[in-house]
This record gives sequence, structure tokens and C-alpha cells, in this order.
Amino acid sequence: MTALDRNAQFLLAARPVGEPKASDWQYTTSPVDVPVDGEVLVQVLYISLDPAMRGWMNEGKSYIAPVGIGEVMRALGVGRVVESRHPGFAAGDHVTGLLGVQQYARVSGKGLTRVDPQLAPLPRYLGTLGMPGVTAYFGLLDAGRPEAGQTVVVSGAAGAVGSVVGQIAKLKGCRVVGIAGGADKCRYLIDELGFDAAIDYKTENVKEMLRQHCPDGIDVFFDNVGGETLDAALTQLARGARVVICGAISQYNNTEPTRGPANYLSLLVNRATMTGIVVGDYLPRWGDAIREMAGWMAQGHLKAREDVVGGLENFPTALMKLFKGENHGKLVLQV
Amino acid sequence: MTALDRNAQFLLAARPVGEPKASDWQYTTSPVDVPVDGEVLVQVLYISLDPAMRGWMNEGKSYIAPVGIGEVMRALGVGRVVESRHPGFAAGDHVTGLLGVQQYARVSGKGLTRVDPQLAPLPRYLGTLGMPGVTAYFGLLDAGRPEAGQTVVVSGAAGAVGSVVGQIAKLKGCRVVGIAGGADKCRYLIDELGFDAAIDYKTENVKEMLRQHCPDGIDVFFDNVGGETLDAALTQLARGARVVICGAISQYNNTEPTRGPANYLSLLVNRATMTGIVVGDYLPRWGDAIREMAGWMAQGHLKAREDVVGGLENFPTALMKLFKGENHGKLVLQV
Repeated sequence: MTALDRNAQFLLAARPVGEPKASDWQYTTSPVDVPVDGEVLVQVLYISLDPAMRGWMNEGKSYIAPVGIGEVMRALGVGRVVESRHPGFAAGDHVTGLLGVQQYARVSGKGLTRVDPQLAPLPRYLGTLGMPGVTAYFGLLDAGRPEAGQTVVVSGAAGAVGSVVGQIAKLKGCRVVGIAGGADKCRYLIDELGFDAAIDYKTENVKEMLRQHCPDGIDVFFDNVGGETLDAALTQLARGARVVICGAISQYNNTEPTRGPANYLSLLVNRATMTGIVVGDYLPRWGDAIREMAGWMAQGHLKAREDVVGGLENFPTALMKLFKGENHGKLVLQV
Repeated sequence: MTALDRNAQFLLAARPVGEPKASDWQYTTSPVDVPVDGEVLVQVLYISLDPAMRGWMNEGKSYIAPVGIGEVMRALGVGRVVESRHPGFAAGDHVTGLLGVQQYARVSGKGLTRVDPQLAPLPRYLGTLGMPGVTAYFGLLDAGRPEAGQTVVVSGAAGAVGSVVGQIAKLKGCRVVGIAGGADKCRYLIDELGFDAAIDYKTENVKEMLRQHCPDGIDVFFDNVGGETLDAALTQLARGARVVICGAISQYNNTEPTRGPANYLSLLVNRATMTGIVVGDYLPRWGDAIREMAGWMAQGHLKAREDVVGGLENFPTALMKLFKGENHGKLVLQV
């Protein structure tokens, strides 16, 4: 243990209605836990800020149990092992896993993966070489099944998942159109990431621009956004299209019921499929995805960008950047 | 030719707004056409009344071009060949195809299929041994992929498609729950067709009853209805569920935009798939489906019921029975 023997934490204090606000968490300190056999004490260095966190704050059935009131807010993170009582880890190792929004995490060694800080900067293990990257990889390749020459459209295209989806689609020989908010992000997609076209949903008519940029229809639509964007994409499906439902960030803070895709009968007209994916299902193949993506990175074919915000205490405002679309690249909190 | 040399026809006169009304067609007579080489003149005996006909009356892109104003209303039918200039057919043959809402159809022989009036009553070739039966067969088996022991739920369960879906699912060893309107239809599903349970959407809470009848969730939901029924089913999906979108009769006469399935994120939570099907895609395997279903019928495992309405002139009111759910079994107009 270091001299620090208090653990600053964000506990879930209330279930948010609509947008989360600072008072939905309690910022507190508690003694640092001592690991028992099989456990590891990790000093958290970077915390991942993900749209999925909004869902974890809600009650009700989902792919994972909600965070309980009074529990540490769930989050992926990267940290350094302080003390290990698990044979797979030693003090000084760098690891990633569900560490929570806190300075120190006492966790089972089973849920941790070792990462190499020589290979990539640590925040990247929360982005392209972490959950968002693996989501993009399997969501696109397994559920989207893009073929060379086909048109792939991705929403939330400048985000942690979307930017990887688009770049992998380019690697597979597809024509790629990204939907993002703001001229800066759109320029980034085309100039830096090599997208064929970008649509600024804040200033452009998405449906009209999709018609223009996808004259033969959309073969794969990878959706992180939901709402009007999903409906617009459904009007432009090609025959046999695959719609991959990865998320619906436009709907997560709704106080009204989720907006369903009114144009869903386009699935019928176009013999198309809409499939939901959850990255946890791909745990057994996680390493394969990371290895292939690390290779693409080394060759310069896959670029990554992180948006690092400093200070654990800034967690609530940092998380809201995500829902406002203010982040550029994968949003990470430096503890 | 018979003594009759006038052909009574319903022409599309207007594109309906909401529910179609009699004045959306023009009932008229014209001379009976004379077939040229490759064509056949058919006396229409039975006309199929299908939910899809409502869609054919709308403008806009779909899986088939809309009926033009002034054109004969499109319909499947069964008839007898009066005169053939196609080598595949002879006068007296019974045939099925897109014959239109009229007494005599001059059609290309390419679009016709011969049927055997000895094997089954003619209206059955418009129901279980026709388009609705083949839709049920491939929609369930190809897109739904039911496995023995799984739970299959079908909406519009007493209709031409739904009743076949449920019976095939039973043949495959599934637990089958039907959703239909009215106690009579529900009794029919259980007592006559062997469904395990039936939900009367007119008097019961569909969501609540699905929870009760599908304690392990719905593995296959075959939807003919859309709207609230689809949303209710989405709340009860089992992990890996397949939702087959065959139609959305609840939405076809909407004057407001189609109601999208607000619970579509259940696809994500449950790693489920929603797929649209169009029976025309299965033309090359049509005969296989008919042969297998005819065999099941002969063994008493597949029951069929037709609701035959008399008189070509009654076409508009007969079609509306369908949208009001007043038909019991496959609705057919006898010319």
C-alpha cells in the first residue's frame, strides 16, 4: 500500500430521470479494502466513460444487472496492481476490467486482463484495444457481414465504437459513410480516418444526404444512436441489408418512452435483418480481435484517438460530455 | 369463349387514405381480351383477399410496384383456362396466379401454376396450399428456425398465415401460443389446431398473458400484426430470439405514421434478430413447401379453413372483413 489509505469513490445515490446529474452519485471516501485470496487490489489510473453506463443506472432487466443504490458506480478502467492474492497477477502489473469509478478497486482476479503499456498508451485499452474496439470488430464483422464493394453506414461515427467500425469497413473494401455531429468531427472522419463521406446530423438532412451518398442503398447500417437517425437509415436500405443495433445514445436520457423505428417495415420490403449485439458474448474471441486490431494499428491502417479528462472528481460532468457529443474520440477520465 | 363476352372488373380509382372504401375502385365491364402467343385466357373462379393488397394500393417503393390508377386491382386467384396460346396449358386446366379482381384474366403463361382440383378444393390453393401457406412455411422454418422445445408465438394466429405457422411449429415440437381477436378464434386455435395457448387481444392484456404463457421467454415471434402486439412480444423475448416480420395489418390503414416498435432495444438486450420476409423470394422452392404441406394435410397434421364470400361485386366489403378481423380462416371471394 502507498501512503494513501483512503479510497475516493462515486457511489450511485439515485436512479436518474432523464439526464443524469451530479446528485445522482455520492462522492465519498472509504478505507482502502484489503484483498483476500483470489483477489487483487488495483490502483485505478484511467476510467472509461461509456454510453452503456447510463443503462446500468436504470432498474429493470437488461444484459447485466443494474448498479445498486449505494454501490460503487460501475465502470471499466485500467490500473496498476498494488497487491495481488491471485496467482495470475503481481504488484506493478497493468490490468483492465470493471474497476468502478474510484481510486482503488479490490476485485477478483478472474475479471482482470493484463495489458502492456509498452505496446500502446494505457487509455487505448479502454478504446480501440478495449471494449469499444471489440464491440466494433465483432458487431461489424459478425453481425454486419460487410462485403467488399458494399456500402456501410455508421452512426456515432466519430465515437469510440463508430470510428473503429468505419475504419474496419474500409479495410474490408467497403464504401463508408459516417454520421456525426459537427463539421470538425466530419472532417476528422474523411481527412484522418479515410471515410468516403460524412454527414453532419446537426446541420444536414440525414435522410436526404444518405440518399445522395448511398445511391445503391445501405448494405450495413451500424447504429449507435437510434431515434431519427435509425429511421432515416431504414428508408435507404439495400435489399438484404443488415442493421446492427449496438446502442441508442439518443434515447438513453429520454423521460418519454423510447422512440421506436417507425420505418421498421423497410426490413420486410428489403428482406433485411436487424440484430442486437452485446460485446460480452464475444469474450472467448476477445484476444483474436485485439491481436488483429493491434496489427492494423502497427501498419497504420487503424487510427485511434482518446479524449482524456483529468480528475476523478469531474466524473459526472465528464460523463455528460458523452451525451452532449462533446468528446472527440474515446472519452476517458484520468484519475 | 362462353356466351359471356363482357368482363366485369374492379379498377383502382383512387389511392385510399386510411381504410379503403368502395369508391377507391371503379366497378366496370370491358370486352373480354383475346390472348396472343404465350398468353392464356382464364376464367377467374376464386379471388384471394390478402392484407398485402392494401399496400399494393399505395404509391411508393415496396417489394412490388403499386397498382396504377385505372389498372385492374391486383389479386391472386384460381381459375379455369378458357383459351390457351401457351404450350404449358390447355383449355379446362385449373391454374393459379395474379389474375386480378375480374371475371376473365388474360395473362402470360409464365406467371401461372397448374393446380389439381382433385387433390384439394380450389380455394385452398389460395390459402394453405398457396401464398399464405408458403409464407408461413418459409417464414417460420427459414427465418424463425424453431427448435423442438422452444416457444413460438404467432400474431394473427387464426388467419391464413398464422394458423399454418402455429401448426407447423407444433409439428416441429414447439410450444405454441397464438394471439387472435375474439373467444371463438382462440377456441379454434386450441381445440381445432392444437395450439398450447391462445391470447384474445380484444379482451386480454397481451403483455401480461405472454409473460404468463411464456415463462422462459419467446424464442420465435412470427408477426403479422405490428403495433402494440409487436411491442408486447418484444418485452418477452428469450435470449437469441428470432422475430419474423411478415406483415403489420394493424398499421396498413393508418393515416398517421406507422408506429415503430418502441421496445426494439430488447433486440440488443437479448441478442435477438428481427428479419423481414417476402414470399416471392422463395419461388424456386415453392413446390417443395406445397408438397410437404400437402403430405401433412393428408396425415391430418395440418388443417385448413377457408371463409368464402360470394359475388365479385362484393369485393370492397369482403376485403374490409380482413382489416376488421371478421374472417375465420383464409378469406376468399367466389366470383
